[in-house]
Amino acid sequence: MLKTKEQFIESLQRQKPEIYMFGETIEDRVNHPLLKPQVDVIGLTYELAHDSRYKEFTTAKSHLTGEMVNRFTHVNQSTDDLIKKVQMIRMYARQCCCIQRCMAMDALNALSIVTHDIDQKHGTNYYENFKNYLSHFQEEDISSTCAMTDVKGDRSLRPSEQADPDLYLRVVERRDDGVVVRGAKCHTTAAVPSNELIIMPTRALRDKDSDYAVSFAVPIDAEGLKLIARSVTPREKREIDSPFRSRWGVTETLTVFDDVFIPWDNVFMCGEWEFAGQAAELFAVYHRHSYCGCKPAVSDILMGTATLIADYNGIKNASHIRDKITDIICTAEQMYACGIAGSVRGKPQGPSTYAPDITMVNIGKYIAGTHIYEEIYRVHDIAGGFAITCPSEKDFKNPETRSFLEKYLKGRADISSLDRVKAFKLVEDLAAHGFAGWLMVASCHGGGSPEAQRITIYRGYDMDTREKIAKCLAGIDDFKNFPEFKP
Amino acid sequence: MLKTKEQFIESLQRQKPEIYMFGETIEDRVNHPLLKPQVDVIGLTYELAHDSRYKEFTTAKSHLTGEMVNRFTHVNQSTDDLIKKVQMIRMYARQCCCIQRCMAMDALNALSIVTHDIDQKHGTNYYENFKNYLSHFQEEDISSTCAMTDVKGDRSLRPSEQADPDLYLRVVERRDDGVVVRGAKCHTTAAVPSNELIIMPTRALRDKDSDYAVSFAVPIDAEGLKLIARSVTPREKREIDSPFRSRWGVTETLTVFDDVFIPWDNVFMCGEWEFAGQAAELFAVYHRHSYCGCKPAVSDILMGTATLIADYNGIKNASHIRDKITDIICTAEQMYACGIAGSVRGKPQGPSTYAPDITMVNIGKYIAGTHIYEEIYRVHDIAGGFAITCPSEKDFKNPETRSFLEKYLKGRADISSLDRVKAFKLVEDLAAHGFAGWLMVASCHGGGSPEAQRITIYRGYDMDTREKIAKCLAGIDDFKNFPEFKP
Amino acid sequence: MLKTKEQFIESLQRQKPEIYMFGETIEDRVNHPLLKPQVDVIGLTYELAHDSRYKEFTTAKSHLTGEMVNRFTHVNQSTDDLIKKVQMIRMYARQCCCIQRCMAMDALNALSIVTHDIDQKHGTNYYENFKNYLSHFQEEDISSTCAMTDVKGDRSLRPSEQADPDLYLRVVERRDDGVVVRGAKCHTTAAVPSNELIIMPTRALRDKDSDYAVSFAVPIDAEGLKLIARSVTPREKREIDSPFRSRWGVTETLTVFDDVFIPWDNVFMCGEWEFAGQAAELFAVYHRHSYCGCKPAVSDILMGTATLIADYNGIKNASHIRDKITDIICTAEQMYACGIAGSVRGKPQGPSTYAPDITMVNIGKYIAGTHIYEEIYRVHDIAGGFAITCPSEKDFKNPETRSFLEKYLKGRADISSLDRVKAFKLVEDLAAHGFAGWLMVASCHGGGSPEAQRITIYRGYDMDTREKIAKCLAGIDDFKNFPEFKP
Amino acid sequence: MLKTKEQFIESLQRQKPEIYMFGETIEDRVNHPLLKPQVDVIGLTYELAHDSRYKEFTTAKSHLTGEMVNRFTHVNQSTDDLIKKVQMIRMYARQCCCIQRCMAMDALNALSIVTHDIDQKHGTNYYENFKNYLSHFQEEDISSTCAMTDVKGDRSLRPSEQADPDLYLRVVERRDDGVVVRGAKCHTTAAVPSNELIIMPTRALRDKDSDYAVSFAVPIDAEGLKLIARSVTPREKREIDSPFRSRWGVTETLTVFDDVFIPWDNVFMCGEWEFAGQAAELFAVYHRHSYCGCKPAVSDILMGTATLIADYNGIKNASHIRDKITDIICTAEQMYACGIAGSVRGKPQGPSTYAPDITMVNIGKYIAGTHIYEEIYRVHDIAGGFAITCPSEKDFKNPETRSFLEKYLKGRADISSLDRVKAFKLVEDLAAHGFAGWLMVASCHGGGSPEAQRITIYRGYDMDTREKIAKCLAGIDDFKNFPEFKP
Repeated sequence: MLKTKEQFIESLQRQKPEIYMFGETIEDRVNHPLLKPQVDVIGLTYELAHDSRYKEFTTAKSHLTGEMVNRFTHVNQSTDDLIKKVQMIRMYARQCCCIQRCMAMDALNALSIVTHDIDQKHGTNYYENFKNYLSHFQEEDISSTCAMTDVKGDRSLRPSEQADPDLYLRVVERRDDGVVVRGAKCHTTAAVPSNELIIMPTRALRDKDSDYAVSFAVPIDAEGLKLIARSVTPREKREIDSPFRSRWGVTETLTVFDDVFIPWDNVFMCGEWEFAGQAAELFAVYHRHSYCGCKPAVSDILMGTATLIADYNGIKNASHIRDKITDIICTAEQMYACGIAGSVRGKPQGPSTYAPDITMVNIGKYIAGTHIYEEIYRVHDIAGGFAITCPSEKDFKNPETRSFLEKYLKGRADISSLDRVKAFKLVEDLAAHGFAGWLMVASCHGGGSPEAQRITIYRGYDMDTREKIAKCLAGIDDFKNFPEFKP
Repeated sequence: MLKTKEQFIESLQRQKPEIYMFGETIEDRVNHPLLKPQVDVIGLTYELAHDSRYKEFTTAKSHLTGEMVNRFTHVNQSTDDLIKKVQMIRMYARQCCCIQRCMAMDALNALSIVTHDIDQKHGTNYYENFKNYLSHFQEEDISSTCAMTDVKGDRSLRPSEQADPDLYLRVVERRDDGVVVRGAKCHTTAAVPSNELIIMPTRALRDKDSDYAVSFAVPIDAEGLKLIARSVTPREKREIDSPFRSRWGVTETLTVFDDVFIPWDNVFMCGEWEFAGQAAELFAVYHRHSYCGCKPAVSDILMGTATLIADYNGIKNASHIRDKITDIICTAEQMYACGIAGSVRGKPQGPSTYAPDITMVNIGKYIAGTHIYEEIYRVHDIAGGFAITCPSEKDFKNPETRSFLEKYLKGRADISSLDRVKAFKLVEDLAAHGFAGWLMVASCHGGGSPEAQRITIYRGYDMDTREKIAKCLAGIDDFKNFPEFKP
Repeated sequence: MLKTKEQFIESLQRQKPEIYMFGETIEDRVNHPLLKPQVDVIGLTYELAHDSRYKEFTTAKSHLTGEMVNRFTHVNQSTDDLIKKVQMIRMYARQCCCIQRCMAMDALNALSIVTHDIDQKHGTNYYENFKNYLSHFQEEDISSTCAMTDVKGDRSLRPSEQADPDLYLRVVERRDDGVVVRGAKCHTTAAVPSNELIIMPTRALRDKDSDYAVSFAVPIDAEGLKLIARSVTPREKREIDSPFRSRWGVTETLTVFDDVFIPWDNVFMCGEWEFAGQAAELFAVYHRHSYCGCKPAVSDILMGTATLIADYNGIKNASHIRDKITDIICTAEQMYACGIAGSVRGKPQGPSTYAPDITMVNIGKYIAGTHIYEEIYRVHDIAGGFAITCPSEKDFKNPETRSFLEKYLKGRADISSLDRVKAFKLVEDLAAHGFAGWLMVASCHGGGSPEAQRITIYRGYDMDTREKIAKCLAGIDDFKNFPEFKP
Repeated sequence: MLKTKEQFIESLQRQKPEIYMFGETIEDRVNHPLLKPQVDVIGLTYELAHDSRYKEFTTAKSHLTGEMVNRFTHVNQSTDDLIKKVQMIRMYARQCCCIQRCMAMDALNALSIVTHDIDQKHGTNYYENFKNYLSHFQEEDISSTCAMTDVKGDRSLRPSEQADPDLYLRVVERRDDGVVVRGAKCHTTAAVPSNELIIMPTRALRDKDSDYAVSFAVPIDAEGLKLIARSVTPREKREIDSPFRSRWGVTETLTVFDDVFIPWDNVFMCGEWEFAGQAAELFAVYHRHSYCGCKPAVSDILMGTATLIADYNGIKNASHIRDKITDIICTAEQMYACGIAGSVRGKPQGPSTYAPDITMVNIGKYIAGTHIYEEIYRVHDIAGGFAITCPSEKDFKNPETRSFLEKYLKGRADISSLDRVKAFKLVEDLAAHGFAGWLMVASCHGGGSPEAQRITIYRGYDMDTREKIAKCLAGIDDFKNFPEFKP
């Protein structure tokens, strides 16, 4: 089923999750002014699945049922699916920077491989659980996210070594009908507008840590599940100020599992510690692949904003402006190139599942996490001081000051002062206030930190072949032993 | 006279400037919760001038009177004065990032040279005006700032070519007793807590633009002077959240001159268009010299914050952490090196005035404007996601959520969760919210944009000597003509 | 026909081109010790076309005849052809850094489009000439290169404005049977081991410069054609020193056309000045696409060499070594990603011809030209001082010094001193001597300078869409007008 | 005594050192065509000590005798001495890139501190030895270098753990009259034109490695001392090609101590392992300080060369050219700023000795080692392909090719082709051939690798103060405990 946005919102309203934010208890997550803009982001994925211009990207044919489903519920079947996923994400993110519905999709793709691998080794039944869950997920067009990062406590210690054993999420009781879990996941984007959550382990584990090797799905209103949220939306809806955040929002939650019961049907891993690392890495591969779509879109928005300001200032075609914009283009398209090439070089892995190329998507995400700062710099550089010194919309409405603002904030004669101010306010909103912090930190740490990508890139690379090449060229080994090329 | 902080505040209270902010008219700039943190910043410069530990930096001997005056009112007399100025600024900025009182000092130093040069050519009396004004400024220990940047309208047009002739500040009437000026200066930092303003032209001018060649001093409560302000301080005072901005604040103003009368005694330039560029450049040189003191202090704060988080996470000595911190150290000390070397290479210019080396201080400011982004990146990189996902202090006070936050936001076992949260909140406040935007844009554009520094660096450099060296080495010119070294 | 290496060499021997180098006249280009290593590079492309492991990449099916031809003579028919081309080039370049046979292939692909476009407008017969020439080229498996860059004289002047009109190649006489051309092309790589040359215009032209709008093919031994060459091969063949350049060589020539006659059948453009820019740009697109294959291979060699040294020094797994190698991996695979994505996003252009995506391949080449310096740095950084201070192989053979070298140049106990020295000599040869200079400058300027890529990237980019996005997000335009996504 | 260049050369001729190079035994180091250019470099330091324009830098007043001595034999007495040293080195290096006489000076300054410190702890007599040696060194105006870097074998093992105990230089016999040493130092610059060598330990040592803690001076022709050299000078003297290396040369040697006897008077450390690290670090501090003078001069030469080419191509004032040159200026003056600021912040250390600031000079050297690659890039970028494709001077002399070269290598009409070619040849010589490799690797590794500088910078930095600042700003510690500023 392809839900409509209205059906999606109704589905949210049918659930009663326990949400706290800024000291309040949130009763109505759909209409709360700080949360509605996030519901609208997810809502977009329901709207555009019915838009004929985008159906090629936004929907896909389920390998389980043959029905057309929302691509956010789809397991990739080919390199073409992988390419379309990247394109879909760039399309959505051009509107809202972060479409927020990819985490669950990426987790499902990872589970499609890992559950099967565990079953192969342990004779368990996880892959069947997974397929059943996926059928339900596709049929109901579930809104979901993946809660992965544990709070971690002392970073120099492993899970079972922590002073408090709950600093990584763990199974505290195993029952006939299911398990009880305790702990907290942090940095969970988009739990608030979700119907369900998918939980994944956050790192490779040792045998002593087997209680921490747990993966499952859970409804957002399960008993004992508590979301402590933080939103980037400003408290007051604005007309001129904060134009981006007045439309689109994001929350992260500290997602607390205060002894939550999970029935066995919803469990995808429980104790098989040797697969925790694989699960975490596969999620990371899929999610870094997603970044190769959304981060170019962020660049699209940033370069468009910078160009708009330059245009309104009358210097759009100055060579130093073009030069700076070119830097942003290069960043955008390098990331996208990694997404496309990572898709083309994708390979089947596990049953009915395609995974993208590890090296390519890690490089794409690495660029995202390290270059966002230069992009922000370029936007600041082009926009100038009004990014932080432009008076507020209230001053525009104040009759004592309005005429002075209209007179003195004028740029090019043919552009109204108000439009120019709106452009500055967009710069401020995207690049010089709370959302900018979110954008930078999420680019840096979302999907794993740059350090994590570097380690993965080196570890997965065939360095032996390169060292053999050097030996042949140095005359240490015979040139006849030159290693064969694998494309 | 060295005023105390109390005397300074009283002096502010005796004036009634016209200030607007966020739609309101501000009646009490000293006690308004959004403005008091900025008054406290300037207040620091009055407090520490009486602190025996810092007197060497914070005070200086007036060349006019031989009295000890606040160094922020002093005209540099030697390379030693220039060094002490840089040190003073680093000292202050370690507390508050931007001490906000240097603009007026830098403008006065520039005027000490330019007024004399104009008099030499035109037989005017500006230098006398300047000295009298400086005596008053030192004696009264005036709080002031420099309003320089015009609003500029269409950037591709010169002042007199703009559709509205007021888009650069200009003289609209010349009277026997003084002049009347109209226009607006933007990005004026610290006008709100000032007693007076010093106005400088923003760029080199041509003869057609002579009405725009105007420099003067004006009391903050002069008739027709209007400040439309924007503050970075959050609306509510916090205990845990926003620790930096709850203590220290900054405002910028759109500073409107709605036909303001300036008596001749306060005028330092009026129509001598050929000196406008020199005035702007000299201010820039002194102000970029100031940046060589404050920006290393910002780095001190950022690296300290990042180290603190790493420490609380238990990974302070990890090699990748040390590596990233080292990058920030290098940035900090390169800027400081430019400040010190720029002072040592300073030269006397005009009567009783020393100016720092143009090349060095421009490079120092250029590093500041381009490297702040990498510094912010390193802080994010080390701090991790809690920089943007940490719940608010209100959730800490909410009994429904407090215990979960205390349990799950724990890092190293020997550090309280609350202290760790405070450290994350400092990261958020400095590097991932509104002040971060201010910090980045102010580093980039304050004292002129990186582009402006690059142009100044090239233009002021003796490239001929280098080209001659190359000719001698290539054998195009005889090696006997190798150019003499000037240290 | 797929020639063998022997047949290729015979074909060279049948021609008598006029070649000068280092003051000598070269009689035997096949066996001259400074030139043979370059003939061997081109020879490799004939050898491996018969190697079953690589036939998929090294050969292709001609769209003219349906026969299998060497891929270096092929016009791309699909995105798959474009991908295979990139893979082929990476395969070859892993052995020899620069396979040197791609220029002619890239020129032919460009001509396949341009000749047709000219005919469409002018009713000329160039496309027929082109197809006939291509049939001959494929059938004879011609070794060729493209001579494109004119010597250019004063760079601030256009061709016809130069003091000497011959500083760009031009038609000096038009006859019934053909044209006579005069001028010189510079930086021509691989003219020496070529059977024929393909000449292309170097830039966009105006109508006054129509004599300079000329493209044609010419045998290497045509009367009046003179090659003044420079080789990177060292004068003496070595066993330990210069291991790379003792195997593989490259020459560039100043290619002088001292009134050379070209029959009409070999002419592909003559006077149609408005197509000169297109021809130059299309060649650039194809050739920058080639760089996306060879430059990753150079990185393969450099990272392999650096790892080998680190291994022999006993520190291969040190974290800072892995970190530096990771930088080279990222550079390599970013360029390759641009090649793959640029192929996938390729489009049909003109009859029976596919062209890669302009933006992607320009970014790939741009990375190549700007990152080679960091790669060289990383190799130096890892290799240490012996890259430049290792005594020569003659000292190894001198009984007075041999034992000291064997004793003191020892690294890890299980590796012979001689092998370690060979590894250092490879570093020196690739990264710290004449070939390093070639490698850096050729990466930077080959296929056009980084500046040229930046201009092309900006000019070809759809910035309007991005600016519209910004307007919608700022609220300047209605969100309903959000521009449609084109993948 | 201030020797003349002639006296210096005579002093070299009176000694008979054992030198090998490229398989030969060198009999006459003064006149050998591959070595004379290096003797001329050192000779410059004797010539210009008599040049009245430079005496302020090139000479200094001995603190031992009060006589004027060559500054290269001087122990720094003040911050002014430190500044003058940096200026002297920049002056010399503008002519020859590397003046090669600073190593011994830097070693002597280090020994002036370390010998005294050892005596304080152990009651030894090394400082007296040192002072006597320094008197002789100043009086005889000795040409010397410091041999420091051991060959090191397996880098993962300490000296005494190596399979061969001689892979670090060590004392193999202690006698009444002196010690016998065995081992080899590598990368020794300028041993060939030296009268004596000063030997320093290369790293911190443990007690088991006490035999390796040895420092001494030794005449270049001591029995058992063997120099196996490698020169960058080309084999044939050129007129157009290699203009730089035809004038100035450099050699490094593998400096073998095949059981060399050192009398006690020349010994400065012998077994006091706990001071080896200090000695190595102090030498590094002084030598990195030297780099702050020579590397800006290399930048002077490179930017001059690039500007010259741009000038001859007619594009000197193009904005992208100025932009690239500006990057080189910034690098140059950042390094120089570190040298000047490192001098001003210098402190007395040990008796009668001033040492520069560790942080500043390490940053200066770090910039040198990491930015040379960007400087080379900029030179290539501006110079274009002729940096590697320009035919040789022999082709200019060949009547068959001369006229074509003169015609087609013409740039701006008013500049002769030959002068333009000379400029390209300078680019090739400095930036694209063997000397470029030397320049890059020597910038990177000379005075220690960038990694070494990073470690030193972090280790020597007062991070505690910064962490305390953060605690005060976060509200974790009381603001009253804000740490005091130390300038």
